[in-house]
Amino acid sequence: MPKADIRMRGFLKRTPVKTLLSLIKDHSHLLSAEEILTVEASGRILAEEIISPANVPEFDRSAMDGYALDAESTFGASSYNPLMFRVVGQVTPGETYDGVIKPGEALRIMTGGPVPKGANAVLMAENAELSGDHIQVLDAVPPGKHVGKIGEDIKKNQRLLQQGRCLRPQDIAVLASVGLKKIKVVRKPRVELLITGNELLKPGEKPRGVQIVDSNSVMLAPLINRDGGLLKAVHHLPDEKDLLHEHLSQPGADLICMTGGTSVGIEDHGPILVDELGELLAHGIPMRPAAPTGFGLIEGKKVFLLPGNPVSCLSAYDFFVRRSLCMMGGYSQDWPYRKKKVKLATKISSEIGRIEYVRLRIENELAFVIAAGGASILSSTTQADGFLLTEEDSEGFAEGEEVQVWLYDA
Amino acid sequence: MPKADIRMRGFLKRTPVKTLLSLIKDHSHLLSAEEILTVEASGRILAEEIISPANVPEFDRSAMDGYALDAESTFGASSYNPLMFRVVGQVTPGETYDGVIKPGEALRIMTGGPVPKGANAVLMAENAELSGDHIQVLDAVPPGKHVGKIGEDIKKNQRLLQQGRCLRPQDIAVLASVGLKKIKVVRKPRVELLITGNELLKPGEKPRGVQIVDSNSVMLAPLINRDGGLLKAVHHLPDEKDLLHEHLSQPGADLICMTGGTSVGIEDHGPILVDELGELLAHGIPMRPAAPTGFGLIEGKKVFLLPGNPVSCLSAYDFFVRRSLCMMGGYSQDWPYRKKKVKLATKISSEIGRIEYVRLRIENELAFVIAAGGASILSSTTQADGFLLTEEDSEGFAEGEEVQVWLYDA
Repeated sequence: MPKADIRMRGFLKRTPVKTLLSLIKDHSHLLSAEEILTVEASGRILAEEIISPANVPEFDRSAMDGYALDAESTFGASSYNPLMFRVVGQVTPGETYDGVIKPGEALRIMTGGPVPKGANAVLMAENAELSGDHIQVLDAVPPGKHVGKIGEDIKKNQRLLQQGRCLRPQDIAVLASVGLKKIKVVRKPRVELLITGNELLKPGEKPRGVQIVDSNSVMLAPLINRDGGLLKAVHHLPDEKDLLHEHLSQPGADLICMTGGTSVGIEDHGPILVDELGELLAHGIPMRPAAPTGFGLIEGKKVFLLPGNPVSCLSAYDFFVRRSLCMMGGYSQDWPYRKKKVKLATKISSEIGRIEYVRLRIENELAFVIAAGGASILSSTTQADGFLLTEEDSEGFAEGEEVQVWLYDA
Repeated sequence: MPKADIRMRGFLKRTPVKTLLSLIKDHSHLLSAEEILTVEASGRILAEEIISPANVPEFDRSAMDGYALDAESTFGASSYNPLMFRVVGQVTPGETYDGVIKPGEALRIMTGGPVPKGANAVLMAENAELSGDHIQVLDAVPPGKHVGKIGEDIKKNQRLLQQGRCLRPQDIAVLASVGLKKIKVVRKPRVELLITGNELLKPGEKPRGVQIVDSNSVMLAPLINRDGGLLKAVHHLPDEKDLLHEHLSQPGADLICMTGGTSVGIEDHGPILVDELGELLAHGIPMRPAAPTGFGLIEGKKVFLLPGNPVSCLSAYDFFVRRSLCMMGGYSQDWPYRKKKVKLATKISSEIGRIEYVRLRIENELAFVIAAGGASILSSTTQADGFLLTEEDSEGFAEGEEVQVWLYDA
């Protein structure tokens, strides 16, 4: 039985947002690991537990500039009973002093230098009175004083970092310090963009006649990067079913975002092709803008159908694609925006059962709805300070009500 | 008069942190502009005001799938008085319909398609009853209905974005949509790292004998990137004054970070060289760790002397170098960490006049001080959830006191 053409009839049935999120979760598994250079791993997700292969440091080192000596031989020293120690040499970091320090001897040592044999404490330079090749010790030095023991920072076989950790700059520094040149991290989800529409010019061109410049790929590229994705290719394609068929039938990435051609107009080939080539799991959602969003699978790869209108595209990306990428990459699915509580300057109406993506400008701690709010008005998201999302089961917010706004700027 | 050697005498006088911050501000001016591709400008600081050179769109377009017609000729239509309109053709986005729509005629039109001459409104497909080549109109359509006018998103000569703005993904999309291929942004401050120390092995090597692996360059690279800097070079150098002299005398970057050799030990050539080659504006600060931090100028370039101990290096970078980079690059100087209020599980003592950088672990909303807190224990910053800074004029915090912690993880 041929599949029915769903175009030009409107969305008869919409997939609840919760259902779509749950479908996305079912199909967005953590990706496999890849080995990369430790120095390039900041911000990546660790895919293995790290057990330290080494002590840091591998030797007892001085924590101060001063004199290494045998602590016991200073016992009894005081300003009434100064003890003299002979300075037998000097050691700086990276050097080794080959001799053994005997009681009554001291070795000049710099911070980070290895404490020599026979010594077990360091007297700070400021507390030692140097005269000729001797120092006067005016106070007893307890054993271990100012000595960083072998492994004081990291011990061999110590559990260093857990699998799943998002690596901080200092984490990769620690990994380098134990000598790990490479580590295993979760590989980045590969993403491909199919930007469709006969009316579209490529970014860099000037808008002319009845054509507009594709802005979606420009916006999606840094968002995908923010969410840990690796943008492998951007294809600009006309609304030709055969061409789209060709591109969709062999997905070259973990996730495809197709923008435009996703609704129910006669040029909207996206949903039909996903249905033909794979499985169209959802198409049409109770969200405004972004109603013509779709999700499906082709050859096991995720295909997101994003509306061509840029505000819809932005909200659908942030709501759905971002979450899928973060799940595959091992990142938190929390919104990547800072939140702020403000009072509404005007009321916001919303239909029960629908989520509204409302752009707001904040002035003197009051939030104003951006009036020019259509799905096609991308400038509304540059004029806005942030956005709010209405709840599905709410009729909106009253004037003066406190709401939570997600701020576009970090 | 030869300049005096300040080494091995301890810091006799320390520069107050406020004074150092003010010196850094005096010498960290906003950098000049550079022209880059708009598509690569997300996250950059705009260095010009943008006035739109074009309307978006450049034509009246349909906001719906439906029928373009002359609104006036639908007046009087109702379910009791259906009016018939002849469908004369169709137009999709990117196409132009050359004819003129006369009263009684309608053109099938898709979302984004240009509204033809003679038409001034769009009837939604769902509200039109199609039979043969005619549609029945059951209700009057007001002029302008579902038509996005020329410039509905952006008007030619409209002020689009202000100088100094940190560009959002949607901002660069808007800039692309008005046809701007390139834009002027503040250029990134160029940074060079001089990693000094005879005891250091390069990252990727295994620690051995009395040597340790340089972890500072590994940590600083992603931090510099985070703060908008461009790391041009990393030099690993032994503690040899001539070599350091050579590297410092011709600064190849806007900002040099020298790590190690910045204190008052015999191998600490940094402060002396900055003093000889330029101006050493500060050396030694009342901060723990990070006391041996220094700042100066050589040939008008900023030179930061960062302690070699990695915790000191991290805190001095975040406190001082970060701010300098952000000022040069036009970014906010706010701490790049999320803050969280928690109660202290133990008291924290601090000397009046000193800022302490205290690493904390948070458990059940209680903050515990990381015990192994020396300047050389980098693993303390991987075990910690964040840090707090004591105030210069405070003796610390009492057990149970609510404090503000900066979280290392975003």
